[in-house]
Amino acid sequence: MTSMAKVAFIGLGVMGYPMAGHLAGKGGHDVTVYNRTAAKTEKWVQEFGGSHAATPAEAAKRADFVFCCVGNDDDLRSVTTGADGAFSSMKNGAIFIDNTTASAEVARELDHAATEAGFHFLDAPVSGGQAGAENGQLTVMVGGEQPVFERARPVIDAYAKMVGLMGPAGAGQLTKMINQICIAGVVQGLAEGIHFGKKAGLDIEKVVEVISKGAAGSWQMENRHKTMNAGKYDFGFAVDWMRKDLGILLEEADRNGASLALTALVDQFYKDVQKLGGNRWDTSSLLARLER
Amino acid sequence: MTSMAKVAFIGLGVMGYPMAGHLAGKGGHDVTVYNRTAAKTEKWVQEFGGSHAATPAEAAKRADFVFCCVGNDDDLRSVTTGADGAFSSMKNGAIFIDNTTASAEVARELDHAATEAGFHFLDAPVSGGQAGAENGQLTVMVGGEQPVFERARPVIDAYAKMVGLMGPAGAGQLTKMINQICIAGVVQGLAEGIHFGKKAGLDIEKVVEVISKGAAGSWQMENRHKTMNAGKYDFGFAVDWMRKDLGILLEEADRNGASLALTALVDQFYKDVQKLGGNRWDTSSLLARLER
Repeated sequence: MTSMAKVAFIGLGVMGYPMAGHLAGKGGHDVTVYNRTAAKTEKWVQEFGGSHAATPAEAAKRADFVFCCVGNDDDLRSVTTGADGAFSSMKNGAIFIDNTTASAEVARELDHAATEAGFHFLDAPVSGGQAGAENGQLTVMVGGEQPVFERARPVIDAYAKMVGLMGPAGAGQLTKMINQICIAGVVQGLAEGIHFGKKAGLDIEKVVEVISKGAAGSWQMENRHKTMNAGKYDFGFAVDWMRKDLGILLEEADRNGASLALTALVDQFYKDVQKLGGNRWDTSSLLARLER
Repeated sequence: MTSMAKVAFIGLGVMGYPMAGHLAGKGGHDVTVYNRTAAKTEKWVQEFGGSHAATPAEAAKRADFVFCCVGNDDDLRSVTTGADGAFSSMKNGAIFIDNTTASAEVARELDHAATEAGFHFLDAPVSGGQAGAENGQLTVMVGGEQPVFERARPVIDAYAKMVGLMGPAGAGQLTKMINQICIAGVVQGLAEGIHFGKKAGLDIEKVVEVISKGAAGSWQMENRHKTMNAGKYDFGFAVDWMRKDLGILLEEADRNGASLALTALVDQFYKDVQKLGGNRWDTSSLLARLER
């Protein structure tokens, strides 16, 4: 438990809406929300109480903790250092916690700007998807300074099942990138395995039952084989979002020199899925391009 | 428990030696062994009792269950339908259980030959590696007829933790192929993830602690990240064996029409590992070629 804090939340999307809800509900904090589309803020306030602000600057100005979950680097710059952005009004010593999946570069840039202006920044991308956000069971990968992390952690806990400090500014984003690299490999391997199994006339359920506890096993196999086998992809983490993440991390790999042949290939495969109309399909839809 | 049976075991390699041991020990069966190199059969008999035979035919002639675990399709044909092969002496109604990882084609061919000659055939490749063989905790993927499977299963149980009938002759081999396809994708994704993480200066242990329970998680991540991070590959399932399996399944995919772009790519990556001298390294050594 933590005492009630003044909290702001910027960005009430599929993830941010329930995350802000947990900060108000389970966290018991005094939450002010901001969203580009005002209708959502009104709906949110009706559901969870708290208040809404007309700009990120207005939402942030009295808050001890300002959370943010927007679409990409540009959106993030817009709501922080842009006109009427939160960084123009942040209190001295307050903490800005960015849950957006963004580049490590923008995290370092905003961390620098925050420090210059006398407040703190944590990059804190999440995994666990919409279901994790709704259940308050997200994994949160944090980059920043230890004492700042310690102060923010009890507040973050309202929507998390696992919170880790991964290193200095940007390290949260870099950890999320590793997460996505691993998912790309697992899902494509699983898609080829199921594809092969169907061509071979095997019962996929039975195959998974036998192999899933051993060296081929994965979260994706356990949790996605049924929907993949049924060709059901209208849920989960969308291909468009995965391609955004893969784009960010492939750029980072160009900077740090990592060779990501498989990841780059899977990114191209996701492009095929987009061409099939799968922009909003779950990442497991890599199988769809093999079966088209 | 099952009553004592007359059992033969052909091929006392890294896998076969302990598997035959469990049939004698835990299974309590009367086991006769055959191995190309006679020194191993003598050592085995000293350790586990039973008896040894000079040829596969001699080993098989009194057995109700003949097990076999050899290197590849050619070795398998040699010890079954070759000169002094087991198929020349198998008893009427006996069961030949092949634990070799081989093609589905040779399984169907030997099943046909066995049926013609009045005995039964099960293809029963295993996963779980040397450790699984030594602990008697293998996963066994079986192809064949249900009544034959039911008779063999209590005997197979001596070295298994999981035994599944996957379909008709060849279905065991096809299931093992799916297992290897999934492993190829998981390991390459994990290798790229760890490679990226090291380049990014992250603490790999900490990263795995945070992401391993979520959508990126896998048996390989849980069980191989430490050794991969340490560059330790002198154990486990060897690259040469993996390439043998990948060769077999890529040929099968040519027959059944499955598209396995990632699997074919990873097969080429394993060739790079062989060029680095990694023929006997564990499959997780895909990371080594990224770090060379």
